[in-house]
Amino acid sequence: MKLGICLVVAAATLAAQTPPPAQASKPRGGRGMSTPANALRSPEVHADRTVTLRFRAPDATKVELVGEIMQGQGPKPMEKDESGIWTITVGPLPPEIWIYNFRVHGVDVTDPSNPAIKPTPPGQAMSSFVQVPGEGPAFYDSRPVPHGEVRMRLYESQAMGVTRWLWIYTPPNYDKTSAKFPVLYLLHGNGEAQSGWVMNGRANIILDNLIAERKAQPMIVVMPQGHALQGANVGPLVRIAGETGMFSERFEKDLIGDVIPLVEREYRVYRDADHRAIAGLSMGGGQALSVGLNHIDTFRWVLGFSAAVGGQFMPAEKTFAQLLADPAAANRKLKLLWISCGKQDFLYQANKQVAQIFQDKGVRLTYKETEGAHVWSVWRKNLEETAQLLFAARRGAGADAR
Amino acid sequence: MKLGICLVVAAATLAAQTPPPAQASKPRGGRGMSTPANALRSPEVHADRTVTLRFRAPDATKVELVGEIMQGQGPKPMEKDESGIWTITVGPLPPEIWIYNFRVHGVDVTDPSNPAIKPTPPGQAMSSFVQVPGEGPAFYDSRPVPHGEVRMRLYESQAMGVTRWLWIYTPPNYDKTSAKFPVLYLLHGNGEAQSGWVMNGRANIILDNLIAERKAQPMIVVMPQGHALQGANVGPLVRIAGETGMFSERFEKDLIGDVIPLVEREYRVYRDADHRAIAGLSMGGGQALSVGLNHIDTFRWVLGFSAAVGGQFMPAEKTFAQLLADPAAANRKLKLLWISCGKQDFLYQANKQVAQIFQDKGVRLTYKETEGAHVWSVWRKNLEETAQLLFAARRGAGADAR
Repeated sequence: MKLGICLVVAAATLAAQTPPPAQASKPRGGRGMSTPANALRSPEVHADRTVTLRFRAPDATKVELVGEIMQGQGPKPMEKDESGIWTITVGPLPPEIWIYNFRVHGVDVTDPSNPAIKPTPPGQAMSSFVQVPGEGPAFYDSRPVPHGEVRMRLYESQAMGVTRWLWIYTPPNYDKTSAKFPVLYLLHGNGEAQSGWVMNGRANIILDNLIAERKAQPMIVVMPQGHALQGANVGPLVRIAGETGMFSERFEKDLIGDVIPLVEREYRVYRDADHRAIAGLSMGGGQALSVGLNHIDTFRWVLGFSAAVGGQFMPAEKTFAQLLADPAAANRKLKLLWISCGKQDFLYQANKQVAQIFQDKGVRLTYKETEGAHVWSVWRKNLEETAQLLFAARRGAGADAR
Repeated sequence: MKLGICLVVAAATLAAQTPPPAQASKPRGGRGMSTPANALRSPEVHADRTVTLRFRAPDATKVELVGEIMQGQGPKPMEKDESGIWTITVGPLPPEIWIYNFRVHGVDVTDPSNPAIKPTPPGQAMSSFVQVPGEGPAFYDSRPVPHGEVRMRLYESQAMGVTRWLWIYTPPNYDKTSAKFPVLYLLHGNGEAQSGWVMNGRANIILDNLIAERKAQPMIVVMPQGHALQGANVGPLVRIAGETGMFSERFEKDLIGDVIPLVEREYRVYRDADHRAIAGLSMGGGQALSVGLNHIDTFRWVLGFSAAVGGQFMPAEKTFAQLLADPAAANRKLKLLWISCGKQDFLYQANKQVAQIFQDKGVRLTYKETEGAHVWSVWRKNLEETAQLLFAARRGAGADAR
């Protein structure tokens, strides 16, 4: 190792040396050593739910605020003071987790004072986020209830030919019992990663809270990486050679051939279709519907949130040919087929259309339109609602309820 | 929930509607839906170990490359083409994980095409990183060996008064045996978080590899949050009211009073001082030395990597008064006292000085000077080396070897 050429200075040698000068050396550049005094307070959430953002950029001449925090408005100029700090106050904002960026000469940058970062697709800047609290804790806020664990583990994927990450939520007290659990396979959106449902979605906190309130069955939630990427030793969004599209055929092989066997070998889970659910958002919603509905003997619970479906991504008649050829089998086997989308989502029409096709063929499903665009506030709520349906013999069969 | 006002459209109602128009709606803004074609290839690591970086910023007129990737040189201008894409090629670079930023009109931004991000202290921009591979896998590269898990869990800290995250590495096959394990408490640097030693340090991969080669004892590694912050529901670097300094007295209380009891209650670990080690880098190094050496009946292995010690941060005579008052007790009890620092580190003199003071008083220690500055390449190597010493009855007692 070039950087590992080490020199052991024996204590005896050191003792013979002149003691070093007493003055403390001064930090250079401050890496790892900056004090909070150097940091701007940004974001600052005020009691009236307005939010002040601050940004140091003395050499810039144009800085704007952009993102969901603008609530549908376009970029808004920030104001620069004589010390080169740009400031803006927005709101009051409804209680929610809000996304924003600073736009510097047309380049979207994150708020360097705020380490809360939302991963975004490659080619786009990452975004910062800020939580505006409401009166009490939200369903996605942690409370002093028993907590599960989120386990990150590496595995050798045969389908991908690489070592990659898998994230797994285990419910509270998993290590203290010998009980078996059902499994929800939960898929992220395009450009995100296996971390998305925890870091952006707070899936573990939502589940902790629901389980504590006995509103959801204790379950294991498995969050695989949805892209065909070069593995843990390379930048996480470097595609495997030959992979160019958003959807990779390797994903299904990885899930069915690598991930599920690993989970059923390494964790205390039920191994039948009644105890397997598959759900996802956006790209992951398309994957959940296409993989799930082509494997109804593997998954009896299939859910798409703002799914990337329809002609642009996956033509319904072709993708779901197996389902549409025998709706009776699907109706008999599936415990829940769920499709939901926000009415302001660019995928709204596509989801509506797929639901219509299913309905025309007599496939039973729960189709739901919500408020909201293609944003995490919708998907957190989707998870909170549907987790209460899963693996519940009586309540879960949305189709049967009609 | 404001955003949860949902409208369930019953399948029967939907069936009565006119089918939506067939044309696929077009993605707006591309959130969650951008294809790799939109993304620039950046970083691109070439076979000759040069690296090309690309950045789209048509409205900017000044973009430079900065960071460790410049190998000690200052900012270097990037070149803009007619489509507004800025490009630069650097190297060849030695095999290592390299840090960089784009500087846009004086503002350091991450590479939006590269989601590999290094967390940095508040007030500084985050940095991007790129790995330049060597001939074979590095000691920090994952290999097809049995893998442990990294478990993220929430806990209610009495010392902090908040719910916060704790990361815990469990060794391979932890769930498959009933064995007990020793515990290394491993502390991050200022401005980083409990994730630092995994995300930047690859501690789990380093341990997986060492354990597979039987070079390190299987152990549990506990990585707490070192700052006094407002908890899991708030931005991760919002300080608890009244906390302003880099070091918080609450950290020691949290570690001793909350974290260790939790670990010893929830995990299969030995509960004696011989099986507890404490190590850290930079701020965490200062914490490891100050907490560890003031609790030699709790920790018998105490290690500081590039520790924030000395007059600037913690005056040795005061911080280590207990140790220096009775060196014989320390020499009798401690299995290993380790202090190391890179010769190009701004903390080099301070570490050398503290080691000198210990030596002058007759405290036995292993003092080591390495190549390198205040950077992760040093600390990954520190962990790889010292993990082989820990909990090994014969080899670990550095002091006894003299």
